[in-house]
Amino acid sequence: MARPLILVTNDDGIFAPGIKALISVAEELGDVYVVAPDKPQSGMGHAITVGNIVRLHPTDYYKKVKKAFMCSGTPVDCVKLAIAHVLPRKPDLILSGINHGANNSINVIYSGTMSAAVEGAMEGVPSLGFSHANYQYDLDFTGLGAYIKKLCENALKEDFPHKTCLNVNFPDVPASELKGIKICRQAEAHWSDSFEKRLDPSGKEYYWLTGVFEGKDKGTDTDIWALNNNYVSVVPTQFDLTAHHEISNLNTWNYEI
Amino acid sequence: MARPLILVTNDDGIFAPGIKALISVAEELGDVYVVAPDKPQSGMGHAITVGNIVRLHPTDYYKKVKKAFMCSGTPVDCVKLAIAHVLPRKPDLILSGINHGANNSINVIYSGTMSAAVEGAMEGVPSLGFSHANYQYDLDFTGLGAYIKKLCENALKEDFPHKTCLNVNFPDVPASELKGIKICRQAEAHWSDSFEKRLDPSGKEYYWLTGVFEGKDKGTDTDIWALNNNYVSVVPTQFDLTAHHEISNLNTWNYEI
Repeated sequence: MARPLILVTNDDGIFAPGIKALISVAEELGDVYVVAPDKPQSGMGHAITVGNIVRLHPTDYYKKVKKAFMCSGTPVDCVKLAIAHVLPRKPDLILSGINHGANNSINVIYSGTMSAAVEGAMEGVPSLGFSHANYQYDLDFTGLGAYIKKLCENALKEDFPHKTCLNVNFPDVPASELKGIKICRQAEAHWSDSFEKRLDPSGKEYYWLTGVFEGKDKGTDTDIWALNNNYVSVVPTQFDLTAHHEISNLNTWNYEI
Repeated sequence: MARPLILVTNDDGIFAPGIKALISVAEELGDVYVVAPDKPQSGMGHAITVGNIVRLHPTDYYKKVKKAFMCSGTPVDCVKLAIAHVLPRKPDLILSGINHGANNSINVIYSGTMSAAVEGAMEGVPSLGFSHANYQYDLDFTGLGAYIKKLCENALKEDFPHKTCLNVNFPDVPASELKGIKICRQAEAHWSDSFEKRLDPSGKEYYWLTGVFEGKDKGTDTDIWALNNNYVSVVPTQFDLTAHHEISNLNTWNYEI
């Protein structure tokens, strides 16, 4: 196989330590292009820029990559713009992350990191999103490379699941304590949201979103269980949102107008 | 049953004709609260406001509702803020829309309208997102009320699917030509994206996202088929993104480090 073409993106911004760690691994595996946000885009979910423009600015910060661009848009914009405009052809692999903060369980739906990987799957490209349970910006990613590389090598070699990407989360322990990789389902959980009301200097109210994560799922096949037990969790993640199992129930309702 | 408590939101902004039509129907069914974006939020997907503040401004534009607020955040922020801060209790029903433009097939994942409904489902509230295949801002929504009302009455009365919301799309025909309601799966399709490059007045490049929708799914059980055949399409839409059927395949890979 020719040297694979790899697109790297993230949602914490193009100069975040997490993407630097991911780019280092990607450079060992293939020819790397980077298109990533010019500012933090956490919580952007699958947002795209509609009704406004998007800009690309080249950067020579990453010396070993083919090309690198800062993008003014969302993580999904980055993937779309990279494929439509930056890369010489569709990539063989799309890597997103490493996010500073876990994207396990229900968090996947809010995650810009994972939405970039989901967009990759929608483009038919094997795509993996990586996140780390530790939020520290200066976290040491040393030792995670072997896990990332193993997953990427599998993704390039094996029959990668169609219409699916992989949601990879690292637990908050040193790499030496990792017990291995575990394929999981996303745990059922819920954010109990609250908003902290404050007053601005003019005396006007504003709100900060806060919340408590409530994970009551006791399954041992979940990403939360895996992370709590020092495994790297891998959840196959799809973009078909149809609840196929509910169609027959809904057909019992009366729709006569 | 006491008069139901209904939250109405959208992504086209609180004064869009689509939400006005939806509020009119909701007022017939229960006590209505409106928390909707103060500006268009199309394409925001499941984005939430992280790292910035959110504001609420009351408006007395809607005379028959209990309370109405313009929100500076995304459609998902509106639902979160309404439940955490505006409503006297969790609502019995969340309605989002009517969006100006269809949210069938793969478009559901980019849709702020549908993400508000998905967030409602995550809160355990029966939630419906409504969209119309016609993009015209001054579209006449007359005649759609009976369909919306029927679906809402079902949602309040029947065993509403758990962890699921309903994605309702109206075809681009006058209400008199509607053939009825059809439960569907989301059609498989793909956006072939392109970006139009332009130069700003300073000579710097910028991009507009454009694209061609490629729907090759020939199934007669899809939302695209229903809309093309003058049916109102209803797709049960879930937020568990796990591709459960891929777990066994992924367990055949080699993960030895």
